[in-house]
Amino acid sequence: MAQDEDLTACPVRWADDGLLLIDQTRLPGELRRVLIDDVDALVEAIRSLAVRGAPALGVAGAFGVAVALRQGAREGWDRAATLAAVERIRHARPTAVNLRRGTDRAAARLEEGVAAVLEEAEAVRREDVAANRRLSELGADWLLARAGHDRPLRLLTHCNAGALATAGWGTALGVVRELHRRGRVELVYVDETRPLLQGARLTAWELAQEGIAHVVQVDGAAASTILYQGVDAAVVGADRIAANGDTANKIGTLGVALACAHAGIPFLVAAPTTTVDPDTPDGAAIPIELRAPHEVTGPDADERSPGFNPAFDVTPGSLVSALVTERGVAEVSRGELPGKLWGTPA
Amino acid sequence: MAQDEDLTACPVRWADDGLLLIDQTRLPGELRRVLIDDVDALVEAIRSLAVRGAPALGVAGAFGVAVALRQGAREGWDRAATLAAVERIRHARPTAVNLRRGTDRAAARLEEGVAAVLEEAEAVRREDVAANRRLSELGADWLLARAGHDRPLRLLTHCNAGALATAGWGTALGVVRELHRRGRVELVYVDETRPLLQGARLTAWELAQEGIAHVVQVDGAAASTILYQGVDAAVVGADRIAANGDTANKIGTLGVALACAHAGIPFLVAAPTTTVDPDTPDGAAIPIELRAPHEVTGPDADERSPGFNPAFDVTPGSLVSALVTERGVAEVSRGELPGKLWGTPA
Repeated sequence: MAQDEDLTACPVRWADDGLLLIDQTRLPGELRRVLIDDVDALVEAIRSLAVRGAPALGVAGAFGVAVALRQGAREGWDRAATLAAVERIRHARPTAVNLRRGTDRAAARLEEGVAAVLEEAEAVRREDVAANRRLSELGADWLLARAGHDRPLRLLTHCNAGALATAGWGTALGVVRELHRRGRVELVYVDETRPLLQGARLTAWELAQEGIAHVVQVDGAAASTILYQGVDAAVVGADRIAANGDTANKIGTLGVALACAHAGIPFLVAAPTTTVDPDTPDGAAIPIELRAPHEVTGPDADERSPGFNPAFDVTPGSLVSALVTERGVAEVSRGELPGKLWGTPA
Repeated sequence: MAQDEDLTACPVRWADDGLLLIDQTRLPGELRRVLIDDVDALVEAIRSLAVRGAPALGVAGAFGVAVALRQGAREGWDRAATLAAVERIRHARPTAVNLRRGTDRAAARLEEGVAAVLEEAEAVRREDVAANRRLSELGADWLLARAGHDRPLRLLTHCNAGALATAGWGTALGVVRELHRRGRVELVYVDETRPLLQGARLTAWELAQEGIAHVVQVDGAAASTILYQGVDAAVVGADRIAANGDTANKIGTLGVALACAHAGIPFLVAAPTTTVDPDTPDGAAIPIELRAPHEVTGPDADERSPGFNPAFDVTPGSLVSALVTERGVAEVSRGELPGKLWGTPA
């Protein structure tokens, strides 16, 4: 196992010479940080999921603008070349809106130079951590009020929406951490999250470091666990939330939501408001990344049996009991749209 | 890939010297038959899933009585030792009722000697193939009548309920084969079926041999595929069907059923009536096998992150659109109990 470290510290941060990332493809076996100082390496790190999770992608995109500026200065790029490089970062993966958002925010200060871009990116990072902390408190409050008892809770989560997926602390796992801090977590069921096992590799590793009791199960076990193992709530992150509350998250999330609805337990989506995209009207408008078939089938699979590998699915807002953000909670399945969180209709 | 062979021929059969099985743990890489002539080897073959699938286990259990009788004769067992060996076979796995049933049926002729036991076991095998063929026709008829159009269908299946899981031909895949024979299969979505990948390894292999178009997906993709990819129906096998229609099948089946209900498409359970157990009143009374945690987590996993590994889940009868057997179809979700199939109330 990789050596323990305080993951509430930042897994995506700027060092003197570039963007310093934990290479998440190597966890939990090895905790290795990589320094990114050119755009090709950043795009590859994003595509290969060395850095992943919508909020973390937002931070990586923002710092990526500084990477592009510095590389441009070294290699004598003109403005068009720099802008093209920023576009490549912005589009390295299609589903998480944070990547585009974080990149755009830092790029808006591109003309001011590297220092200004870094200042903006650092703000993106800092605000994400603060949002995670706040939404975790609000999510814990909401869940405990909803639980209506004083027992510790049995929770289920899918994929990794922890410190690794954000600028630190975590969204769904942030809520779990906060509940644990309050002594209210009995057990967390962790879906392994095929094909890339972010649950088994990353979420289990984070929970082990925190000393939060958990078990790892195949994704197919989620429905049965929710219906028959006394789960109190499921809590997941999000890659993009449409204006109507439809939510894109890691493939398999929809099945968790359907089981929660059948069991009559809350299905929580925990995400900063940077993951809400008012420009996306509904789930049908969210681009779903199709990844390489061999991630499912393995490289040596029979060519007559190709893999089908959508990386995300869309959970209709009607199944989202609560969208938990740093600005408050929207009970989407009861008709509260995400726009409520800004005090204006979506 | 293993060499093709006609899987409608029997994957579990008697040879001169013992029970001849395809070792399903080695597929699709290698098509190897193993000859079983002692009880330890048979119990291990059942536990390791070298032979698996409820109907195939019924046949293996029946022939297993002959294996025990022959070993007893060789090794000078008394009657009690032989009966104890039969009990071990009968209980090698707990969920599929067919194992107990097939074993009991052959054991009822134990006093008549090996020839009589083999005759009975051969009848179990032959009847299973006949039941598969018949239920496949009835399932195809039901689905096509329900479809209400002439297009080929998009189907989804979970785990392997094919020729390998039976005495030959298959149950859920039997229905798919029959639909294909009628030119009515467009595409089959195959859930890979973690942790042991019976979908990716066995179902995909069977479909490839038949030339039936299919793709393999992670189990977490099932709900999304059902809701958004135009799937017309899901069809699965069963390990035990309770008197009220609650159905135990491979872990992950319940999630498929929930998605079908949400999408408003049929969820079919295809199984011979030998899988219906009138002595099990409901799903809560079905023993669910918990298998080794390392099947989920791998042998080198962090001991702080244990695996939780139920092999089966229970789909409530309320979600079973049709139970398709060789005796006819019971529309369980509409209140038709499995007992209807014998013309008497359950």
